[in-house]
Amino acid sequence: MSVGHVRIVGTGLLGTSLGLALRRSGVIVSLVDPSPTAVALARDLGAGELADGLTAEAGDPDLVVVAAPPDVTAEVVAAELRRWPGAVVTDVASVKGSVLTALQHTGEPLDRYVGSHPMAGRERSGAVAAQADLFEGRTWVVVPGPDTAPDAVDLVTAVAVSVGAAPVRLGPGEHDDAVAAVSHVPQVVASLVAGRLRELPTSAVALSGQGVRDVTRIAASDPILWTQILAANAPAVRQVLAALARDLDQVVSALGDDVPGARATLARMVAHGNAGHARIPGKHGAEPTSYATVLVVVPDEPGALGRLFQDMGDAGINLEDLHLEHGVGAPFGIAELSVLPAVVERLEEELVGRGWRVHG
Amino acid sequence: MSVGHVRIVGTGLLGTSLGLALRRSGVIVSLVDPSPTAVALARDLGAGELADGLTAEAGDPDLVVVAAPPDVTAEVVAAELRRWPGAVVTDVASVKGSVLTALQHTGEPLDRYVGSHPMAGRERSGAVAAQADLFEGRTWVVVPGPDTAPDAVDLVTAVAVSVGAAPVRLGPGEHDDAVAAVSHVPQVVASLVAGRLRELPTSAVALSGQGVRDVTRIAASDPILWTQILAANAPAVRQVLAALARDLDQVVSALGDDVPGARATLARMVAHGNAGHARIPGKHGAEPTSYATVLVVVPDEPGALGRLFQDMGDAGINLEDLHLEHGVGAPFGIAELSVLPAVVERLEEELVGRGWRVHG
Repeated sequence: MSVGHVRIVGTGLLGTSLGLALRRSGVIVSLVDPSPTAVALARDLGAGELADGLTAEAGDPDLVVVAAPPDVTAEVVAAELRRWPGAVVTDVASVKGSVLTALQHTGEPLDRYVGSHPMAGRERSGAVAAQADLFEGRTWVVVPGPDTAPDAVDLVTAVAVSVGAAPVRLGPGEHDDAVAAVSHVPQVVASLVAGRLRELPTSAVALSGQGVRDVTRIAASDPILWTQILAANAPAVRQVLAALARDLDQVVSALGDDVPGARATLARMVAHGNAGHARIPGKHGAEPTSYATVLVVVPDEPGALGRLFQDMGDAGINLEDLHLEHGVGAPFGIAELSVLPAVVERLEEELVGRGWRVHG
Repeated sequence: MSVGHVRIVGTGLLGTSLGLALRRSGVIVSLVDPSPTAVALARDLGAGELADGLTAEAGDPDLVVVAAPPDVTAEVVAAELRRWPGAVVTDVASVKGSVLTALQHTGEPLDRYVGSHPMAGRERSGAVAAQADLFEGRTWVVVPGPDTAPDAVDLVTAVAVSVGAAPVRLGPGEHDDAVAAVSHVPQVVASLVAGRLRELPTSAVALSGQGVRDVTRIAASDPILWTQILAANAPAVRQVLAALARDLDQVVSALGDDVPGARATLARMVAHGNAGHARIPGKHGAEPTSYATVLVVVPDEPGALGRLFQDMGDAGINLEDLHLEHGVGAPFGIAELSVLPAVVERLEEELVGRGWRVHG
């Protein structure tokens, strides 16, 4: 990689993690943050040096990474472009079109600006949650603008690869439409479904099963952060949500009294969901793989899952996915193991032979 | 339990599983199904005897369990009440109000009828997917009608307990409102969000992360079955969906250009989702517990998870929940371990000491 010095502006989760990752490969990292406490913490964690204390040998940065909150990103990017006339500047905001538009309004030349969206959020934030391997295996969307120089794109792509991420190139509109559908709209919907549980009787909430748990898991997210994200991607999110609202209205109508064709509407909705769900890629970015599932009854005690996975490992069988389900009032749970269909029979034999209660 | 002979009408997943469970405790089980193949399969699996071939010693049934599709349940229950004047009759349909109303229209006395909803579905259906422990640890909602005799309720409750389920008593309206909010509406919403993925470019679907995977997991469900369930619970589902549609419209409006108070609307939506999500009970039906999470990098190879859980077991630490996340193009995944907050520090020490890469 042809980068010797990376300046990171904003030492939250992403900025600090990036510093940690770059330091591992010996890159000089300089850190700045409006909060002296935050930047000192990132330095102490090993994410780089304070930019203020940097020796002259470090030279000017080759790359500036702006990891600021979405609503100040464009302003900070413009300032960094002006300050470092030899550097490529990127940002990590999860919305790209509004940042680019704001930058274009500054009149600043944008040949050295490339947008980024490393898809590596966590439920925790801040430098304390940072990790050097945060980007390993994650998608890093590289988003050139119309004026971006090819060299600038190559540099950001190389940095993404150097921290273990898988770079993907998209235009700003493509990116924002994509994250609206696969990230922002699911968040809104999870919040709305969970919000409807607020006023239910306790006896009703008690009937919650794995379905509603899965649908609402991300409803535990941070309101302030999500308000910023949704506001920054408002047009794209609005378009998908409006289409969803039309679909929803059709379902509500179909559930009215004696509506002709109602059952066809309902069946079509579920079938369309089947089709859309099947498009979500499997792990490692591969085409979705159809796994077979095996259910195993697991006592709710320390080490029980350990024994199960140990036994799977001894049998040389790799687990592709896992859902745990706990019974109400029962001293055991059910582990749903997803494995390649070809190994199901052997897995069942191995587990039964080792005393597990197994259901194919 | 004071039940000697249970007649099961309908040998799909639930009927066959119930037969298997009851046979374990020595109850006489007689099986009927419109399909001779289905009932013979259930018999061969050990779920009971064919009702046609039953000897006179078995006597009349004490309890009839109707495990038929929702849209014929009421009709079959009425026929069984007429045929066995000494038996209690229950059904296992996942919607209760419409079954009761249909039964009341038959004019049949309903003192011997009790509704049931054992919450023990699976993604697979039919007798081949049956399992004797299907009900273990699951909630079994017992739903008396206004005319149901207390003895009949007691009998069904005792049977639920005898197969390992946790009985809960609700009125038909309470039950249907509850499952509308915690099961049927999440299903509709998951299907709608997944359906919106159908027309996305492949490059957009490729950005799918764990959030959209969780939100849409149940979108893989069976269209025919769900059409029946939604149609049978139409009024209650419609009411929740209509409220959700109003919430959604507010969000769509807030995402328009320069709407006053828009950010407050968005933040309130996410905050309400936080509050609703926090009401979902933890495992074993207890109040929701706040778990701490620990992230561990796990190589994607057989036995790696086994070693991890073995190490947790050796440390005497119980896993409360687990999410696995696989990186795109990476030879490892991240296991998010949920444990009681009090053991986090010890867990991290133990795992780091055994060579795991751990992030708190």
